[in-house]
Amino acid sequence: MTAQEGFAVDPWSVTEHRLDLAGMARSESVFALSNGHIGLRANLDEGEPHGLPGTYLNGVFELRPLPYPEGGYGYPESGQSVINVTNGKLIRLLVDDEPFDLRYGQLRDHLRSLDFREGVLRREAEWTSPAGRTVKVTSARLVSLTQRAIAAVDYEVQAVDGPVRIVLQSELVSNEQLPQGGEGDPRAAAVLEAPLVAEEHHAHGTKASLVHRTRYSGLRIAAGMDHVIEGPDGVSVTSEARHDQARISVTTVLQPGERLRLTKFIGYGWSATRSLPAVRDQVEAAITAARYSGWDGLVAEQKAYLSEFWSSSDIEIDGDVELQQAVRFALFHVLQASARSEERAIPAKGLTGPGYDGHSFWDTETFVLPVLTYALPGAVAQALRWRHTTLPLARERAAQLGLAGAVFPWRTIRGEECSGYWPAGTAAFHIGADIAVAVVRYVRATGDMEFERSYGLELLVETARMWRSLGHHDSAGKFRIEGVTGPDEYSAIADNNVFTNLMAQSNLKAAAEAANRHQLEAAALGVDTEETAAWRDAAKAMYIPYDEKLGVHPQADGFTLHQLWDFENTPQEKYPLLLHYPYFDLYRKQVVKQADLVLAMQIRGDAFTPEQKARNFAYYERLTVRDSSLSACTQAVMAAEVGQLDLAYDYTAEAALMDLHDLGGNTRDGLHMASLAGACIALVSGFGGLRDYGELVAFRPRLPSGLSRLAFSMRVRRHLLRVEITHEQTTYTLREGDKVRLQHDGEPFWVEVGAPVQRPTGKPTTGERPVQPPGREPARRAPQAGPMIGSVLAGSEHLAAE
Amino acid sequence: MTAQEGFAVDPWSVTEHRLDLAGMARSESVFALSNGHIGLRANLDEGEPHGLPGTYLNGVFELRPLPYPEGGYGYPESGQSVINVTNGKLIRLLVDDEPFDLRYGQLRDHLRSLDFREGVLRREAEWTSPAGRTVKVTSARLVSLTQRAIAAVDYEVQAVDGPVRIVLQSELVSNEQLPQGGEGDPRAAAVLEAPLVAEEHHAHGTKASLVHRTRYSGLRIAAGMDHVIEGPDGVSVTSEARHDQARISVTTVLQPGERLRLTKFIGYGWSATRSLPAVRDQVEAAITAARYSGWDGLVAEQKAYLSEFWSSSDIEIDGDVELQQAVRFALFHVLQASARSEERAIPAKGLTGPGYDGHSFWDTETFVLPVLTYALPGAVAQALRWRHTTLPLARERAAQLGLAGAVFPWRTIRGEECSGYWPAGTAAFHIGADIAVAVVRYVRATGDMEFERSYGLELLVETARMWRSLGHHDSAGKFRIEGVTGPDEYSAIADNNVFTNLMAQSNLKAAAEAANRHQLEAAALGVDTEETAAWRDAAKAMYIPYDEKLGVHPQADGFTLHQLWDFENTPQEKYPLLLHYPYFDLYRKQVVKQADLVLAMQIRGDAFTPEQKARNFAYYERLTVRDSSLSACTQAVMAAEVGQLDLAYDYTAEAALMDLHDLGGNTRDGLHMASLAGACIALVSGFGGLRDYGELVAFRPRLPSGLSRLAFSMRVRRHLLRVEITHEQTTYTLREGDKVRLQHDGEPFWVEVGAPVQRPTGKPTTGERPVQPPGREPARRAPQAGPMIGSVLAGSEHLAAE
Repeated sequence: MTAQEGFAVDPWSVTEHRLDLAGMARSESVFALSNGHIGLRANLDEGEPHGLPGTYLNGVFELRPLPYPEGGYGYPESGQSVINVTNGKLIRLLVDDEPFDLRYGQLRDHLRSLDFREGVLRREAEWTSPAGRTVKVTSARLVSLTQRAIAAVDYEVQAVDGPVRIVLQSELVSNEQLPQGGEGDPRAAAVLEAPLVAEEHHAHGTKASLVHRTRYSGLRIAAGMDHVIEGPDGVSVTSEARHDQARISVTTVLQPGERLRLTKFIGYGWSATRSLPAVRDQVEAAITAARYSGWDGLVAEQKAYLSEFWSSSDIEIDGDVELQQAVRFALFHVLQASARSEERAIPAKGLTGPGYDGHSFWDTETFVLPVLTYALPGAVAQALRWRHTTLPLARERAAQLGLAGAVFPWRTIRGEECSGYWPAGTAAFHIGADIAVAVVRYVRATGDMEFERSYGLELLVETARMWRSLGHHDSAGKFRIEGVTGPDEYSAIADNNVFTNLMAQSNLKAAAEAANRHQLEAAALGVDTEETAAWRDAAKAMYIPYDEKLGVHPQADGFTLHQLWDFENTPQEKYPLLLHYPYFDLYRKQVVKQADLVLAMQIRGDAFTPEQKARNFAYYERLTVRDSSLSACTQAVMAAEVGQLDLAYDYTAEAALMDLHDLGGNTRDGLHMASLAGACIALVSGFGGLRDYGELVAFRPRLPSGLSRLAFSMRVRRHLLRVEITHEQTTYTLREGDKVRLQHDGEPFWVEVGAPVQRPTGKPTTGERPVQPPGREPARRAPQAGPMIGSVLAGSEHLAAE
Repeated sequence: MTAQEGFAVDPWSVTEHRLDLAGMARSESVFALSNGHIGLRANLDEGEPHGLPGTYLNGVFELRPLPYPEGGYGYPESGQSVINVTNGKLIRLLVDDEPFDLRYGQLRDHLRSLDFREGVLRREAEWTSPAGRTVKVTSARLVSLTQRAIAAVDYEVQAVDGPVRIVLQSELVSNEQLPQGGEGDPRAAAVLEAPLVAEEHHAHGTKASLVHRTRYSGLRIAAGMDHVIEGPDGVSVTSEARHDQARISVTTVLQPGERLRLTKFIGYGWSATRSLPAVRDQVEAAITAARYSGWDGLVAEQKAYLSEFWSSSDIEIDGDVELQQAVRFALFHVLQASARSEERAIPAKGLTGPGYDGHSFWDTETFVLPVLTYALPGAVAQALRWRHTTLPLARERAAQLGLAGAVFPWRTIRGEECSGYWPAGTAAFHIGADIAVAVVRYVRATGDMEFERSYGLELLVETARMWRSLGHHDSAGKFRIEGVTGPDEYSAIADNNVFTNLMAQSNLKAAAEAANRHQLEAAALGVDTEETAAWRDAAKAMYIPYDEKLGVHPQADGFTLHQLWDFENTPQEKYPLLLHYPYFDLYRKQVVKQADLVLAMQIRGDAFTPEQKARNFAYYERLTVRDSSLSACTQAVMAAEVGQLDLAYDYTAEAALMDLHDLGGNTRDGLHMASLAGACIALVSGFGGLRDYGELVAFRPRLPSGLSRLAFSMRVRRHLLRVEITHEQTTYTLREGDKVRLQHDGEPFWVEVGAPVQRPTGKPTTGERPVQPPGREPARRAPQAGPMIGSVLAGSEHLAAE
């Protein structure tokens, strides 16, 4: 992809200056709007042409059978796939007797733009119909961050060069026909045909609604719309509805310069339990409220919400405007994915596309929540409360697997395990510790003890129980966890994966501590001091393999004895490897898909000496192919820690540009939320050196040569803190809250409101740049680089799913 | 199952004295007739009631898709399932106007019997119809061991108590309706509905034929029949045919005492390439020849063939008539499975049922061929030539997996990999060495150098190439084979499985030796001295893990560090474990489904000291649950070797009685060929102590207290040898061939025709009986035991297949 085919570089917005029919699906993901509850892909108002039509409601899915050629005990029998619900964003336009379709006639001008401070997708088009009549179409679309059930479209058509007869058809359409699944790429979601069964349809005046039910998952979904129409006199409005379609038609004749404006308020609701009238009425009430706010009111609320967000969470960069744009794009989409998810999962793709069937993975806790913890902590509490609601299912799963406590699913929408390949699903038990560590991080960062008491404790206890029953003591008294899969999906079913064991150690320790803090609540969960002692003992006795000969940690027992992957004879077109080599071969050799031991060093930095970190980092660099988008950000953080700042910069850019440059070639299926969040982590934890696992929030700022300034704000310990880093010095400003003790380059200091503290920014001596597998080096990011990054990476951050 | 429900105990036959409707499917397997080309389950002549109708032709299968919830590179997309072909054994009987159906009326007497010396299934029934008319039905059925394409039925009905109008309908029926797959037991084969597409049908006089084609696998199948009719005057014969049915109807009236006799000659042929007329005509020619032989001729040929077989291959036992019966039953069925398979696979169930989809596994080379090598060596050459014909597919598979040489399928009918679960399929690379070792064993036992030159060499070379590319040298120079699965299916994807590494070592060494013996032919295969040197080096450097602390060999790296399975808290109803526990849990703990390290000690006894054997045997005894029928026989052999003779006796009985006592509960799906063959191995290699991997054939005879005499004959090195063991002495008699040097208890001696040699039988001091997991002990076989064995074992010798 060249820069010309992409999006204009601007620090606060992303803009597309011409319509690229081949790249429509990618743009639909990039410009997708969401509030975490509703997600609208950026399909054109008129519906066609499209890349991949998509309207999603968080938690709405259909069940589908998971077939196995050879079954096995405990294999999930049923999968869950996100479905394309009733499309409410459709506004078709007839110009005289020609449908407004950009594939025909002449498109004089087409622009789409999304400003991260406004949260509105704006579009301008000037089009001459095949019959020679020219119109200007201006539309704006939002998914409200303040009114959860609401999306809205402000649509205006203007006659340019003569009188035209205009018909606007504003529609709700269910069971849209979807294009057949790509070029056989198994990573795209299974296309589910016509998943909605009609229950009720209604249209009257400017209002209409459709109510449907999913066939197998039994969810009821209501969609409704209402309209405000402004135009010349003589506008006629009709309405009609049938099972899968409702339509309001607005007709008039526009003289040159005259405009017809239609404001569409769209409401969605769904429930697994509530009655049809209840769901329908809740949608109609939401629409009534939105209409009361009006378009301008919705836009004003949206701006105010975003202004507050950026004020406390912006990441500013000087010296690389493209990276500045990319990181704000990243923060904006992470916000959209999580702002109003409210006790629902945050999927790997947010609500931007159907990739990975709309499932949530460990990505959420490991990459997305660490960003939200300091930016939008309320969303973290919501996301973890969703995990808490799934505890009954996780307990059932644990019992089925013969384990104590809770086993959370590797991939799911509602909470049931949906992974059809257990060596990379069920066996990835680290998901439990990922959740536990996210709880600990959130509670430490916010001091939300009420959350810990009511939700966090139980999550910690049930995951600790799982670990205690999964591991065992060997004859030397070491606690071993065997036959599990760590983050790296090019290894599986290994013994004593260092990441897993260290995360389990944190989990066990944290559970014992939390149980001690909340003794009554812990007792109610059946925890006694024998149990907490057993957790502490297991944590203390945790076995961490180490290869004395090489002086590095093997990713798991025996890893460093395995044969090296033959990188020299692996041509570039054979990446991602998983599409060209069998798992058995990947698993048995030294080749790493994504940071595993290196991620352990980021999250559990306390468990490694600086020398070990440097040696380990260099060792795994030459093995890591980054066939997953969940890797560059972690490599960036650890590269920065070991002093490889330019390498860290390269990785940061790769993580940040994953979707804007479509580095994985699959942005069409939705955005890579974890990579986007990871770009923020790379900046804040990499160059900012933020580490928050001790008593004090610690920083270790360093800047790569390509950046002249990095500044970020964050909410932590009920403070609002701003950190500004230049090559010379770092300034800590407390914007809100009581005086706080922080750490800079290992030295503690106090900072209070009105009295910023400055410290010199460290300048590590840079050793030799570690080597990556041939052809798998990150693209070098030249200082002041324009949009030059183009190395095409595979973005299969999870195993292929058909 | 109690003895009363089972079969009468007799040293030379198996007899069922009453019809057990619930156990019909089991009897259909036990009484199944086959010559390795055609297989007929013992369905009643009249077709119904039935357990599971079955008529099989070796190599006739249908393709079916293998669906994966999450696909992966190199996963087989297509499976192969044995199909029930045109049923030619049907003879329906109408008595007045009542169909002869044993579920109605009164069954006065019903007996079925199979004499292993005759190879004919005989049946006698006396039945009174609901209307009160009594007839005697006598039938006999054979599948000819001498006329490969031929089966025949001799059917006679006699009026007993009054004149009856008799109609006999002798039929060919295609696409029989099959019962729906059991109680969801995934081990039963997928039922394929109506797999045959009609091509031609024909009937005239006493002859008829049907020609069909399979829909996807494209095989053409012809079935034909002809009849000889004897009865009172006034017998009328009509014939008719349609797509899926051909029928010859014979009508008469029988006065009391009069008989109607119908001899039916059935012929089968199939081909993937030959034309319809060619296949049809070959069947008609075979039928013509059979009719020329006549029923009595066919029976005489059958007896002569079997007489020759028993003369050279019988195993005689004194002291346990049930075991005597069982071992002859075993030998008879092993013979039936392989006698005329002729460059086709020998399936795990022979042609006795649809279990495991009719696939062949490593069972053939590891359990069946070792018996045939000394009993019917020509069948071994045929079976290995079948492997040789699949070399192009095995080379393709190796290339797909990124390996050199050939990778043979874990399960297949035609040669393509059909395993849908790679950790227990593709990863079980030992199949390659199993084949290589079978080649070496056959060539050593027979001296068939022409076979070695033309077929064996290439099998050895291509498997050696595979091993050389699969393993690698570590920094210490040891040759390691990682990420593979050994025989034990409760472990998978382990490093340096001892069995696999030792077998690979044999394979590599044997390939180098054979290439040296056949230098021209090896050069034609591209083998040079660099390559053979690399094989020798890898064999020599082979890494065999050993746990110094425990003084035992771990089954694979790290195995002895794993958590012990919690046997104490595993109730008996949770066996077989694979149906009640997830693979991840089985794989990560010390629990063994079937002999693995213990099998390595049997096949590669030279690689272990006697002390290691004793310690290893005891260690693995307490871990081995025998959820596979491929275990007891191996445990028997090694128990005998380490001096545990009574334990060996118990295991031998278990292996031998697997099907006669339905110990696995799944005899209905077909007989366990490997367990049956294993019973013979247990006697000859266990109590006889036969080891044939050195220069001399070696014996180490010992008898358990329950047996007073064991005698067996075997063909080896162009000799026919008889060994007779009593507690006092062992007599070696050379029945045919030149003077030969043998070994008795480690001491060499010569024996020649006419001069038997006697040596005292060893009496090992028996140590403490090793302990098995609670409840998994083999049933104790009391001396002179009647049919008391009843411990119900699971017979899932391969992973569940849906």
